[in-house]
Amino acid sequence: MLYLDGKKLEEILSAKDAVNAVKEAFSLYYQGKVTQPQRQVLTIKGNWWGIMSSYTDFSVVVKIVNVINENKNRGLPSVQGIVILMSPDTGEPLAVIDGTILTAIRTASASVLSTELSYGNRIPTLGIIGAGLEAYYHAKIASEYLSVSRILVTARKSHIELAKKIGADAVDLQTLLKESDVIFSTTSSKEPVVLGKFLKEDFHVSSIGAHTPDAREIDDETIAKAKTYIVDSLQAVSSESGDYIQPQKKGLIKNVIEIGKIITEGIKIERPSIFKTVGISAQDNLAAYYAYKLSQTFSK
Amino acid sequence: MLYLDGKKLEEILSAKDAVNAVKEAFSLYYQGKVTQPQRQVLTIKGNWWGIMSSYTDFSVVVKIVNVINENKNRGLPSVQGIVILMSPDTGEPLAVIDGTILTAIRTASASVLSTELSYGNRIPTLGIIGAGLEAYYHAKIASEYLSVSRILVTARKSHIELAKKIGADAVDLQTLLKESDVIFSTTSSKEPVVLGKFLKEDFHVSSIGAHTPDAREIDDETIAKAKTYIVDSLQAVSSESGDYIQPQKKGLIKNVIEIGKIITEGIKIERPSIFKTVGISAQDNLAAYYAYKLSQTFSK
Repeated sequence: MLYLDGKKLEEILSAKDAVNAVKEAFSLYYQGKVTQPQRQVLTIKGNWWGIMSSYTDFSVVVKIVNVINENKNRGLPSVQGIVILMSPDTGEPLAVIDGTILTAIRTASASVLSTELSYGNRIPTLGIIGAGLEAYYHAKIASEYLSVSRILVTARKSHIELAKKIGADAVDLQTLLKESDVIFSTTSSKEPVVLGKFLKEDFHVSSIGAHTPDAREIDDETIAKAKTYIVDSLQAVSSESGDYIQPQKKGLIKNVIEIGKIITEGIKIERPSIFKTVGISAQDNLAAYYAYKLSQTFSK
Repeated sequence: MLYLDGKKLEEILSAKDAVNAVKEAFSLYYQGKVTQPQRQVLTIKGNWWGIMSSYTDFSVVVKIVNVINENKNRGLPSVQGIVILMSPDTGEPLAVIDGTILTAIRTASASVLSTELSYGNRIPTLGIIGAGLEAYYHAKIASEYLSVSRILVTARKSHIELAKKIGADAVDLQTLLKESDVIFSTTSSKEPVVLGKFLKEDFHVSSIGAHTPDAREIDDETIAKAKTYIVDSLQAVSSESGDYIQPQKKGLIKNVIEIGKIITEGIKIERPSIFKTVGISAQDNLAAYYAYKLSQTFSK
């Protein structure tokens, strides 16, 4: 059985492969070719734990993930996870993969994919809000997969360190919003950070934070300006995401479409556009499967 | 993170440690110190898959297991499984363990523990019905943990090979039933194989098979003769096991008691006795935790 820690996973799964994996995941999900049984949620010592399974004709994946807020005081990531890939035919375990890094990679790959579909591959200025693990992988995969002329980073803290690490400019939020063509919002904020009044006329925003009904990462003005509101899963977003639920009630969302439909049917996206993603198990599934298949090729 | 395949697990987890782990599991379960959320059952390509979680103050364990009948034609075990141990405090994955062997070991350890509690450590003749993986580990752990003078084995097939492998005598079923003091029944039979009319006056039977309401491994006569009917979990056995549900309806079960109560309260068992076990997640949890802790000691 294969074990991939975060470092090995990064070596094996290039940005191109990761984006392709996520593209196939969304496409299979849209076609009903990925089954995602209801996730099991546990509360252990006051912390949130989730067990998420999914399967296709060629892969069974279970992700166990948790959010341990006290880990911040321990110098450990607050999100810990592990992903297990098994064969749907023989039932054998095929691979165990670091779930924290796999999740960060597949989430960033979704943002990058939405950017390619809506904005294309040449991004004059990419703005990243947030400076955590997700922000880092967003910068990494965007840089490797797209042609990005300039990256701006802003966050409440640590954005100067992140900017240095990824060769970006650390700026204040307003500057970032005003100067960016594409924005990745990767915060744990409960209040909007993407503020429509500062944005350019043409933009693409991918928002991966604010995944509870009461939290917001994108304000109403941004949403009112967007001609297309792309989601990973309409079912997931309409039950989990305040950035969808609240403006939807107000009638601000004009044109909502699943990314899987765009991919499968080759639909052209009208900009400005938003991509709102809460993350679906199909992404873990295909990312794990691609990593496993690539490691098979590597070892030959 | 630690990975223990079946071979390494056997090296690290001695019979004594495995029996102690299972003893603690039953005791904690009886005291309500193990939480076992409802397992998730999936049907993938027509096969049964189960995802079982459990947690204590010091361990979170998820077992993914399946039954792939076509594996017989592939020369692979029909039950495949993997067990993941994580920390309930930091959320970190601590160990990934072969679930097939861990299950066989913890199941055999439960049978051996019930034998020690009811019959003591000196067994003149131990009879094992069945010749599969479970039968092998029952023989192994009984031999290592108890003082067994003679082992008899019977099965529809392969019992001559198993007898050779474990230094036992291969006999027919009737001989085994007549001559054994303790019987481990480890079959996939739907009809009773433990037949009361052949048994000695004094006996202890541990039955790990027949875990659907319509299946039987022990006949009514055996159950009527037993003064004590021990179970791993009254809740589990009364919803899953035909060997409990059917005779219970007929009023044949006199004195039913959970093994955890016997351990925790130091209750003396009246013989003849039966132990019926369908297996509980707490056993996987503690067996995985013991293996992990022991491997920590080994590596120091």
